[in-house]
Amino acid sequence: MIKVGIVGGTGYTGVELLRLLAAHPQVQLTAITSRKEDGLPVADMFPSLRGHVSLAFSAPEKADLNACDVVFFATPHGVAMAQARELLATGVKVIDLAADFRLRDTAVFEQWYGMPHSCPDILGEAVYGLPEVNRDAIRKARVIGLPGCYPTSMQLGFAPLLAQGKPLVNELGLIADCKSGVSGAGRKAEIGSLLAEASDNFKAYGVKGHRHLPETVQGLEAISGRKAGLTFVPHLVPMIRGIHSTLYAQLLPEARSTDFQALYENHFRNERFVDVMPAGSHPETRSVRASNMMRIAVHRPGGGDLLVVLVVEDNLVKGAAGQGVQCMNIMFGLDETTGLMQVPVLP
Amino acid sequence: MIKVGIVGGTGYTGVELLRLLAAHPQVQLTAITSRKEDGLPVADMFPSLRGHVSLAFSAPEKADLNACDVVFFATPHGVAMAQARELLATGVKVIDLAADFRLRDTAVFEQWYGMPHSCPDILGEAVYGLPEVNRDAIRKARVIGLPGCYPTSMQLGFAPLLAQGKPLVNELGLIADCKSGVSGAGRKAEIGSLLAEASDNFKAYGVKGHRHLPETVQGLEAISGRKAGLTFVPHLVPMIRGIHSTLYAQLLPEARSTDFQALYENHFRNERFVDVMPAGSHPETRSVRASNMMRIAVHRPGGGDLLVVLVVEDNLVKGAAGQGVQCMNIMFGLDETTGLMQVPVLP
Amino acid sequence: MIKVGIVGGTGYTGVELLRLLAAHPQVQLTAITSRKEDGLPVADMFPSLRGHVSLAFSAPEKADLNACDVVFFATPHGVAMAQARELLATGVKVIDLAADFRLRDTAVFEQWYGMPHSCPDILGEAVYGLPEVNRDAIRKARVIGLPGCYPTSMQLGFAPLLAQGKPLVNELGLIADCKSGVSGAGRKAEIGSLLAEASDNFKAYGVKGHRHLPETVQGLEAISGRKAGLTFVPHLVPMIRGIHSTLYAQLLPEARSTDFQALYENHFRNERFVDVMPAGSHPETRSVRASNMMRIAVHRPGGGDLLVVLVVEDNLVKGAAGQGVQCMNIMFGLDETTGLMQVPVLP
Amino acid sequence: MIKVGIVGGTGYTGVELLRLLAAHPQVQLTAITSRKEDGLPVADMFPSLRGHVSLAFSAPEKADLNACDVVFFATPHGVAMAQARELLATGVKVIDLAADFRLRDTAVFEQWYGMPHSCPDILGEAVYGLPEVNRDAIRKARVIGLPGCYPTSMQLGFAPLLAQGKPLVNELGLIADCKSGVSGAGRKAEIGSLLAEASDNFKAYGVKGHRHLPETVQGLEAISGRKAGLTFVPHLVPMIRGIHSTLYAQLLPEARSTDFQALYENHFRNERFVDVMPAGSHPETRSVRASNMMRIAVHRPGGGDLLVVLVVEDNLVKGAAGQGVQCMNIMFGLDETTGLMQVPVLP
Repeated sequence: MIKVGIVGGTGYTGVELLRLLAAHPQVQLTAITSRKEDGLPVADMFPSLRGHVSLAFSAPEKADLNACDVVFFATPHGVAMAQARELLATGVKVIDLAADFRLRDTAVFEQWYGMPHSCPDILGEAVYGLPEVNRDAIRKARVIGLPGCYPTSMQLGFAPLLAQGKPLVNELGLIADCKSGVSGAGRKAEIGSLLAEASDNFKAYGVKGHRHLPETVQGLEAISGRKAGLTFVPHLVPMIRGIHSTLYAQLLPEARSTDFQALYENHFRNERFVDVMPAGSHPETRSVRASNMMRIAVHRPGGGDLLVVLVVEDNLVKGAAGQGVQCMNIMFGLDETTGLMQVPVLP
Repeated sequence: MIKVGIVGGTGYTGVELLRLLAAHPQVQLTAITSRKEDGLPVADMFPSLRGHVSLAFSAPEKADLNACDVVFFATPHGVAMAQARELLATGVKVIDLAADFRLRDTAVFEQWYGMPHSCPDILGEAVYGLPEVNRDAIRKARVIGLPGCYPTSMQLGFAPLLAQGKPLVNELGLIADCKSGVSGAGRKAEIGSLLAEASDNFKAYGVKGHRHLPETVQGLEAISGRKAGLTFVPHLVPMIRGIHSTLYAQLLPEARSTDFQALYENHFRNERFVDVMPAGSHPETRSVRASNMMRIAVHRPGGGDLLVVLVVEDNLVKGAAGQGVQCMNIMFGLDETTGLMQVPVLP
Repeated sequence: MIKVGIVGGTGYTGVELLRLLAAHPQVQLTAITSRKEDGLPVADMFPSLRGHVSLAFSAPEKADLNACDVVFFATPHGVAMAQARELLATGVKVIDLAADFRLRDTAVFEQWYGMPHSCPDILGEAVYGLPEVNRDAIRKARVIGLPGCYPTSMQLGFAPLLAQGKPLVNELGLIADCKSGVSGAGRKAEIGSLLAEASDNFKAYGVKGHRHLPETVQGLEAISGRKAGLTFVPHLVPMIRGIHSTLYAQLLPEARSTDFQALYENHFRNERFVDVMPAGSHPETRSVRASNMMRIAVHRPGGGDLLVVLVVEDNLVKGAAGQGVQCMNIMFGLDETTGLMQVPVLP
Repeated sequence: MIKVGIVGGTGYTGVELLRLLAAHPQVQLTAITSRKEDGLPVADMFPSLRGHVSLAFSAPEKADLNACDVVFFATPHGVAMAQARELLATGVKVIDLAADFRLRDTAVFEQWYGMPHSCPDILGEAVYGLPEVNRDAIRKARVIGLPGCYPTSMQLGFAPLLAQGKPLVNELGLIADCKSGVSGAGRKAEIGSLLAEASDNFKAYGVKGHRHLPETVQGLEAISGRKAGLTFVPHLVPMIRGIHSTLYAQLLPEARSTDFQALYENHFRNERFVDVMPAGSHPETRSVRASNMMRIAVHRPGGGDLLVVLVVEDNLVKGAAGQGVQCMNIMFGLDETTGLMQVPVLP
């Protein structure tokens, strides 16, 4: 059994981790910390966990995280990098669901997250936790920086196009028009996320610039080995879970005869959590609700030169907690799907 | 033109007042205060008002509220009673959308609202702003305590039963099972009101006791002149606006032959904002969305001894801002429907 | 492995059965019928099942249902009773999610469902599939009539009160104010269930009389062995899944000193799927979303004589498919929780 | 008073027309037809209209549409063209909310709508009812083909870019990623529009090709006088009303120094129903809910060469019924805003 600790389990990625780990056959939930909720049984905050999780939150200094095999950080940005060194020193692996170990360039991190990076050396060894791209490195990693929810969908959606030896599309003019349910904003008391504000409503936000832009560009360039240019426009959907990314790429003349359906199917042939749907499909976010699955469909409207790729994922699962568990499975030599084969909940 | 001021216009009842008053043909919006938003054009906070409201918020001390004919308080409990005396002294009428002037008994007020009442003398002259019950008193009032959203629906729903010379139902065993959209919780940053918490979900709350209980009992007793007993169970509906109250009353043996459909129709025959629907109807909250209308249907399932009354209103209109404007119309001698004849928005 | 067939798998209870059975460790999905969708892979209709269910729908005459150990009917009323005899004759057990085997009295069935009952003899041996009441009979049953979604919540919510040797409450004056998500109306193309009609809206329906009334009264009387009288008012909530029943019962004078919290906890002490929450709780439907759990809270507002019981369940799981699997587990001697321990999905 | 008839008032654009026309000070609602609902008071079908509309539906042959000054067709495609000739012959003007008079080229009409066009001569004189583009022609028109909901947002959103003497953007590579509430699908009993299907879900549809594509391209080319190329990807949002179009246009090198904020503000300076928001804004659909307003924001992320234009409208008002009333006002010499100054409903 893998002994697992969670730092900061009071948010949506935290409770989702608990949902998945509570049912994971190889995991023993060992500690979950929250200074504010010290002593409160987790199931008192989240009654959905009654009968499944008997742990109580404990203040960080009381929790024996060093006794864990792995610790997940479901915390605001900045927390994991403050605690990682000590955990690593005692042999505990670290999986951060926040942004501390995502961006390779600390200057870029500081620009977008407004804080200096406190441990560039650990960042140096950290692995970006996108198994479909980095599986081998994950296997050997001690520190994982899990991708953001949007970046997961954008990178995997563009990956088959960019992973070829030569460019198929204008890689400097990529567009990602992304739509997310409001759980992506976290379990924070903010007016803009109230049901009375966000329900029966639709809007874009952060068009000027969003933290997931530099992360995604970094990832796309890692895939292609070439420079990438991306316009990323996020939108807020009046739903709880789910991301739908609509990706646009301009075909290069030499790629016009490519069979993109086949390209995508081949690229993901061995992936258990990426489902390339039949040509002509329109994946729905609910088709992956509460599961670690991603579904992708490739379109070329009117047979023209603009490729349209539709990607759906559950932002809390494949976009966060589920991907974290997937990485953990890889790191500990388990079958990658262990504890992650939930059938999506529909309707 | 009636010069109107609003104290505290940043919440849902505030913006709803602005929506109604901006289109009211006899109203000149004169001042709107918010210490926190001093200087901010109202339409910057609520873009829906762009082109309709050119006022900016001003700090209370800058706003010349004394130049108004009437001031609405769309504020937390306690604010109106702190400012009413000065306004009244300069001849300004006061309409409070909060609870300061609802409860006749200051001890009850203090018990439920946790603060002492600072002006019992003004409370003494204040009129409970439920036009269908108190129209004559409202006409002469200087101070109005507007009913709560739930109490409006419960009182008008039970009124025809209680307004008779002798009891028709067990007036000590009334039940109100009420359901409200989340805007009833106000424009406050609270986790329980987040879309990701309240959407696709249903729950009761406050079963132990809710502030609208004593207010409603007081109102029911004022209608009947007899003692009333009420169990009130509020629930939260994943929708923005609307209250649906399902009322239960046990018929007394001597009332079994009463034609309750006729009783209700007669009682509200001259009311412009209460619509008794045909027998067998199931009123929907959306049938009154964004309007000052209330719709009521009377049922007697299986021809038995339990009367079931269904009441719908828009909690922000007939349950708050609209009822305030209705009172204002009465107080200033206008036709009661002036500025209040919006057709409900459906779908 | 239990070989399972499903007749009529294109509705919401059908796809929910598939979700549960696909992950059930002791089940082999053997056949699923739909005349209209003959040949269509189930996962083409419900992409959430891609990778989990490889079966295709087949026309009834092609499906070898007789080779199954048990057949679920997720069909309109009337279908199961037409096919049960043949299946039983070949040793196949039958679990009907519709109403064919719920009502003991065929006259009542015909009155409420508008069709004669075609096999009173089979009805005679059928067992009402409410394990918390009928576990022993279910164990030996060949034919199960599964309770309706509302009746499950009402019966279990009232059960501890009625199961005592003498009445604790006025059993002739029970009230159930119930609220259901729209999946309860089934996957049928009806205008009233459109998102543009049912969203941001709330209403009662069927106040005059609802099919679940006689079923529930029959069940309550079976529990108490005494006559029961119930007023049942169903409402439609703008959410997908979930039932919240708010139950009212008038205490008898001799029961005033009863500890109802203890009564409920004792009654359900050994039940794995009924969770009596701590005193003062307000269960939310989302706390059981996508799980077979029911949660109950008992209130006595103001310490008065009216008991208020709050019950939540997922109408498609404990209210339908999950309860069916629970019965199947009992009938085949499995642990009752096999394949049913999903952690509820929150948020 | 303008005598107005409506053919086919049982859908969402029909009831929205009724909402607007019932409150229009210069309109007398004269007839509303529905063969199926002959004799049914309109307010029985739509209780929101109780007290506002006293008309009953009448079968087409009974309705004296010839006595009207103008007849709106809120019908399926094909109905208006079958009845227009007779109405025009008696001097009645025609405003069609469907597609019969949108496409100039009958071959294109037949290709996308699957029926021959029955009156090319009337089509020849019909005017495309987009006042911000065609105001003068609308003033003199006898027949109006109202734009579709998506095309209204796309054309007005791109208009300032295309209306210049020389191209500013790559007009052959325009992209419109559009999102619509489900009322856009009409009041039709279809499974895909059920709340249990469309709620808490997001998806694209019609990526292969959508009827609003040729209409929009025709309109864009009419604005620019040049060839246009457009990729249009519609998506379904779990909300009732509202369209959000996110438009992408690649700047030409010679346009890099253009002040696009000023360009948009100037272009729409005199328009009462198009609001160009301040730079950096993110318009929300709810900011125009139930109103005829459109709001637009112009972005240039990262100061790069891709222009992003955000457009919101209420699909049932500016995208349908409201635009129809706006055209009527122009045709009959009224102030264009008569009866259309409703303040948007927020929250």
